[in-house]
Amino acid sequence: MKVKEIMDKNFIGVDLNMTIVDASIKMESHKKFTTPVLDSKNTLIGWITSLDVTRGLRENHKYVKDIMHSTEEIVDLHQDEPARLAVLAAAQHKLVSIPVLDDDGKVVGVVRTFDIVKTLSKLYEIKVTNIFKAMSTELKGVSWDELMEASAIVTKRETGKRVTAKEYEQRIKNSTFGEAIWATGGLEKFFVGLIAIGELVIARKVAKARK
Amino acid sequence: MKVKEIMDKNFIGVDLNMTIVDASIKMESHKKFTTPVLDSKNTLIGWITSLDVTRGLRENHKYVKDIMHSTEEIVDLHQDEPARLAVLAAAQHKLVSIPVLDDDGKVVGVVRTFDIVKTLSKLYEIKVTNIFKAMSTELKGVSWDELMEASAIVTKRETGKRVTAKEYEQRIKNSTFGEAIWATGGLEKFFVGLIAIGELVIARKVAKARK
Repeated sequence: MKVKEIMDKNFIGVDLNMTIVDASIKMESHKKFTTPVLDSKNTLIGWITSLDVTRGLRENHKYVKDIMHSTEEIVDLHQDEPARLAVLAAAQHKLVSIPVLDDDGKVVGVVRTFDIVKTLSKLYEIKVTNIFKAMSTELKGVSWDELMEASAIVTKRETGKRVTAKEYEQRIKNSTFGEAIWATGGLEKFFVGLIAIGELVIARKVAKARK
Repeated sequence: MKVKEIMDKNFIGVDLNMTIVDASIKMESHKKFTTPVLDSKNTLIGWITSLDVTRGLRENHKYVKDIMHSTEEIVDLHQDEPARLAVLAAAQHKLVSIPVLDDDGKVVGVVRTFDIVKTLSKLYEIKVTNIFKAMSTELKGVSWDELMEASAIVTKRETGKRVTAKEYEQRIKNSTFGEAIWATGGLEKFFVGLIAIGELVIARKVAKARK
């Protein structure tokens, strides 16, 4: 996944000679704590936060250019960089938003931490059923029922508890990846379980083909 | 994991009768875009953001109480709630910070989105090599080299880029589960890749046995 896939394209910008009062009105109406300072071609030339604005208003500065941070102080990302760099930058520099540039240094979006949280939590909140669906699509020639049967057998083997294919299906319908990790005792164990199921289902497929 | 394990205990607070000017100086010096409004016992009685402050300064309001949001408008969390509720609240309400309360409604911390990002990203810092080691142990009769060869073939098939088994091994040695998920575009895709590798390695094993 690339930075451009998680960035917000509906960002706002202010310009160098905008008054601080106008910039504050714009930021408030769009509920943005930070905004890039852009020239007429959308090139990034600075950055202001609402804390720069409060100081500017208090100290009677007039223009955005009087309070902005220069580009040297700004952490930015290129739109084609891996999205995880946005995660690392936000965590490391304690940022709430990061401007995203194209090859010409033009701002094409802004990555916001709550969007990162949303993306990361989607991952965590993903239904276990989806993983099995992906598995079932990948394992051509294996039906969903065969996959559930194999899962029930592996569960019995690993936990000692008998479970039917139907019960297994019901269980994964109601649980998320996050819950499954806790339930199985960690990410590696969760994967080992999935791999065991994959192996068994393939072995059964091969055995069937031989008959 | 509970909310109290991911919250920042070094939060600041302002009080009802503090001037907006003093509140803005405090928020700027601590670099906080948001802060709870607290009484003398640290009970949560309101919330202000730096955007409320810019409006307050511009419109010549005087005190924190003139610009603050009431407790009804605030999303808060209890310290003993599961940490994943903080994740869901931040993503759903697009929040940069959430106050954390104890049984008496006193603020004991603040959860910030970049801390959530840090926690979530740590969860996925497990080495990809570990997952492959688990896979190799589970797939009895398949050597590590055979697994790397199958991985290189699947990578070529899925990305179009040629990679040797050695290069693949080097790549997973240096990457984490989190990186792999971001790189492949999501958990399902990552897992589909693993299944494809598992399927191929078993198919090769079967073909060899037949010779």
